[in-house]
Amino acid sequence: MSAATAITALTEGAELRAGSLIVTIFGDMARAPGTGIPGPVLSALAGRIGVRPEAMRVALHRLRKDGWIASRRAGRVSVYLLTEAGRAETEAATARIFARRPQAPDSWHVLVAGPLDPPARLALDGTMAAAGCIALAPGVWLGPGPAPAGLAPGFFALDGAAPRLPDWLRETLMPPALAESYADFEARLATVAALLGRCPGTLSPLDRAAIRILLVHGWRRLVLRHADLPDGFFPDGWRGAQARARVHALLDRLGPADVAALAEDAPA
Amino acid sequence: MSAATAITALTEGAELRAGSLIVTIFGDMARAPGTGIPGPVLSALAGRIGVRPEAMRVALHRLRKDGWIASRRAGRVSVYLLTEAGRAETEAATARIFARRPQAPDSWHVLVAGPLDPPARLALDGTMAAAGCIALAPGVWLGPGPAPAGLAPGFFALDGAAPRLPDWLRETLMPPALAESYADFEARLATVAALLGRCPGTLSPLDRAAIRILLVHGWRRLVLRHADLPDGFFPDGWRGAQARARVHALLDRLGPADVAALAEDAPA
Repeated sequence: MSAATAITALTEGAELRAGSLIVTIFGDMARAPGTGIPGPVLSALAGRIGVRPEAMRVALHRLRKDGWIASRRAGRVSVYLLTEAGRAETEAATARIFARRPQAPDSWHVLVAGPLDPPARLALDGTMAAAGCIALAPGVWLGPGPAPAGLAPGFFALDGAAPRLPDWLRETLMPPALAESYADFEARLATVAALLGRCPGTLSPLDRAAIRILLVHGWRRLVLRHADLPDGFFPDGWRGAQARARVHALLDRLGPADVAALAEDAPA
Repeated sequence: MSAATAITALTEGAELRAGSLIVTIFGDMARAPGTGIPGPVLSALAGRIGVRPEAMRVALHRLRKDGWIASRRAGRVSVYLLTEAGRAETEAATARIFARRPQAPDSWHVLVAGPLDPPARLALDGTMAAAGCIALAPGVWLGPGPAPAGLAPGFFALDGAAPRLPDWLRETLMPPALAESYADFEARLATVAALLGRCPGTLSPLDRAAIRILLVHGWRRLVLRHADLPDGFFPDGWRGAQARARVHALLDRLGPADVAALAEDAPA
């Protein structure tokens, strides 16, 4: 049985924070309204993955305090579930994490702000990044789709179809260290694929769920570190597209996590 | 007879440099290869316009030394004509000066240079301006047509159809002082149009040519002070389009200058 080796391949040398792992678990297993995860299932997953029970307890407490998860009693067991706010945030991130392709807008627009004082520029930088725009130069951005209809009058704008991206820009969008993390993750995925072989059916529900969570978690931690852009926006040699294909192939092979089956197996 | 008043309306308070006036005269009257202007015709025009003979002599001498005009003898008279170099420069400017409409490209492109040191940026600014590009921000330009095919690899580029130009940009393209010069010129044109009435046929060839030269000269001195851009790129209230229409209406009414008729009238 290769589950332990696969889990090691996905966790070795990686810093696993309990809070972040819980966010991944709920995003993968309990996005649907009303879906809860019993405490013992969370503990069993954490144990299988190698996260200490105290760390999980502290993280659950903090996420509950932040209004991100809630809990209810079911007999002797606590069942955790996303709050409305937690689900909204989760849904927003989920689209990107589980996308089989990155966004590929038909058009783009360049915006140029007029002369600005530094605080105004700083504020604008934040607004633009939040809107999915890329900084091309101080006060100059590239955004997906056509220029917004309600654009403030001070902006220059040009809509176009196919931006041409020089190497220096690709490297600001995917810095070498992050590109290396992608390559490292792809190598781990190759190991996992080889270990799982062609018959993941022999895995226990817990092993299957643990491996699945680690795949989603590793992928999530990569894609959320950069803007959502077409593959062609990143440097030549970037392994993200290959890693994405491998993640999806492995998730398809493992199938969705089955909370009910996990709950049956988990000691209350 | 209103010719003198018309000439006064076009010259009053305007600084007329002899060299620049000669450039205008050759551009309007002697662009065709081999077409010469006899010295006495130049003197007569200058005299009618109010430029001193010594100033004309000095300017002719300098333009000949610069290889811009040449001269040949025809009996007792010197005939001046553009050199190849002079004609090439004249033709390049003439297209813009006599255009009945400004250029209106179907498409535009934004270029963004990568990080540059100040001398490299300065050099690039010059190259871009010479290529008819507008500076949008440091290292960022808008150029007519699609991005050039042979663009250096370091440039970001986006092609698009319809740029949106904010007021601050329009004012860098047409500063208030220049916009005022346009309005001033338009007012002079209105005076000239009123003075000439509907029958310019009663003007002598010399008066007709002098007024024509002053119209072309005034217009030339305005359009060559800014980039060749669609009217919509300039601030609301800019009078350039109206002035252009008036210039062309007046030139059409006056008809082309007739060097042969002028030569007959001019004392050798």
